[in-house]
Amino acid sequence: MSSNFVFINDAFFQASQSAILVKDLSVQRGYGIFDFFKTVNNRPIFLDDHLDRFYYSAAQMHLQVSQSRAQLKEILKELMKLNNMPDSGIRITLTGGYSADGYNLAEQPNLIITQNSFSIHQHAIDKGIKLVTYNYQRQLSHIKTLDYLTAIWLQPLIKENAAEDVLYHNNGALRECPRANFFLVTANNEVLTAGDGILKGITRKNILSLPQTEIPIIEKEITLDELAGAKEAFITSTTKNIMPVTTIDGKSIGNGKLGPLTSKLQELLKIKAS
Amino acid sequence: MSSNFVFINDAFFQASQSAILVKDLSVQRGYGIFDFFKTVNNRPIFLDDHLDRFYYSAAQMHLQVSQSRAQLKEILKELMKLNNMPDSGIRITLTGGYSADGYNLAEQPNLIITQNSFSIHQHAIDKGIKLVTYNYQRQLSHIKTLDYLTAIWLQPLIKENAAEDVLYHNNGALRECPRANFFLVTANNEVLTAGDGILKGITRKNILSLPQTEIPIIEKEITLDELAGAKEAFITSTTKNIMPVTTIDGKSIGNGKLGPLTSKLQELLKIKAS
Repeated sequence: MSSNFVFINDAFFQASQSAILVKDLSVQRGYGIFDFFKTVNNRPIFLDDHLDRFYYSAAQMHLQVSQSRAQLKEILKELMKLNNMPDSGIRITLTGGYSADGYNLAEQPNLIITQNSFSIHQHAIDKGIKLVTYNYQRQLSHIKTLDYLTAIWLQPLIKENAAEDVLYHNNGALRECPRANFFLVTANNEVLTAGDGILKGITRKNILSLPQTEIPIIEKEITLDELAGAKEAFITSTTKNIMPVTTIDGKSIGNGKLGPLTSKLQELLKIKAS
Repeated sequence: MSSNFVFINDAFFQASQSAILVKDLSVQRGYGIFDFFKTVNNRPIFLDDHLDRFYYSAAQMHLQVSQSRAQLKEILKELMKLNNMPDSGIRITLTGGYSADGYNLAEQPNLIITQNSFSIHQHAIDKGIKLVTYNYQRQLSHIKTLDYLTAIWLQPLIKENAAEDVLYHNNGALRECPRANFFLVTANNEVLTAGDGILKGITRKNILSLPQTEIPIIEKEITLDELAGAKEAFITSTTKNIMPVTTIDGKSIGNGKLGPLTSKLQELLKIKAS
């Protein structure tokens, strides 16, 4: 994670000097939200979608953003200029702030904006990845909070299963990966993705809003049992775009290769993001 | 939260200088564990119980503690000497460390030890408090993690209900408060407390290990419905000792006052902690 300048509250700092006091509610109680977008050739991708969600997450978690959207955009512009990192990931974090008693919300949250170099994993996008399922429902899943406790705790399980990521289900109802949404292509060539109990990703949103003349994409509960009959599956995120899933719990999805509908959607998304 | 010196990894810092880099996994992903004990007249209360749980939580979350128990005790001793704060709360936090990619665990966690002045809320202990219930099961509840996301998010709900704290239940099975265990006295003078889906508190542990000649204390699932027939209820924690609960969801427990069994247990615990 290379990084040059970091913005904290009202000033820019060298990454090596980018610190917050340990009384911050993220350190004390894991409390905060964030959003994350990429820049391609210095152009932020789906920036307004990400800012919409950032302000939404903040409001949901009772965190007041001091900066207006225009001010935030100015800060982002300046950060990008300072760092001169055309292809990057930019993360905007808002924590519970410096709590007086280490538990109750502070008057002011802390705002932290980092920019790091970033490259899409093209190999995995072409070749596909393996998932292992796990019964877990994220708390406050509609909000992009800092809570990745179970996700990181599960890292050994993922390795033991020779998988690349975990797919959560809530007692059989498929949900999402910790940092990506999940889609499945049925035998009838319908593309399904969960509509409840998940974080609604920006890539997911932009796929759902593709013109649906050719490929029907439907928000609908999918069960673990439906994986057996699936022709294709893929996950979506800012860093992964549309990444085919070839294997879940050791069983091939369809023929275990990048499928035609996944490939078609990859193309359509590329056009939309350009 | 007054504080003087803070220990971070291998050195003492003034509280105003006690910072960690924003790439720490607590700030990035809410990942870490902690424990918290009190000192009374410079004597740590139930220290070994707290250190047992600290090392247990760390191991469960794949975090390696660099310091042996003896080393940790030396550091605590020095911190107490530096701060000269006889009645205090000491918190030992261990985060996921400086992650290379902001997601995977670092080689080394960050260790943070803070000491703050502290006084028991004797008024609430004498008078009792009001709770409001909420359907929520903590993730990895047996581990003392940094995750208080839902607890802090619920602060407005607690206020709206003129309550002092929230009591979680999992679809009707009573669990715990965010920072305290819950006990109930039945019509048959049995003292019940949940045994599953909770963090096993140190005060709770010491109550369960009281000689049971007089008062039977049983780990057992308690349902929301059982609150109506309860004679007494109380919560327990390091900061609250045994605190009577007089009202839950607007309904009185028993006669709505500190009951005789709660009072008796308060006495027995006081002896045990002395």
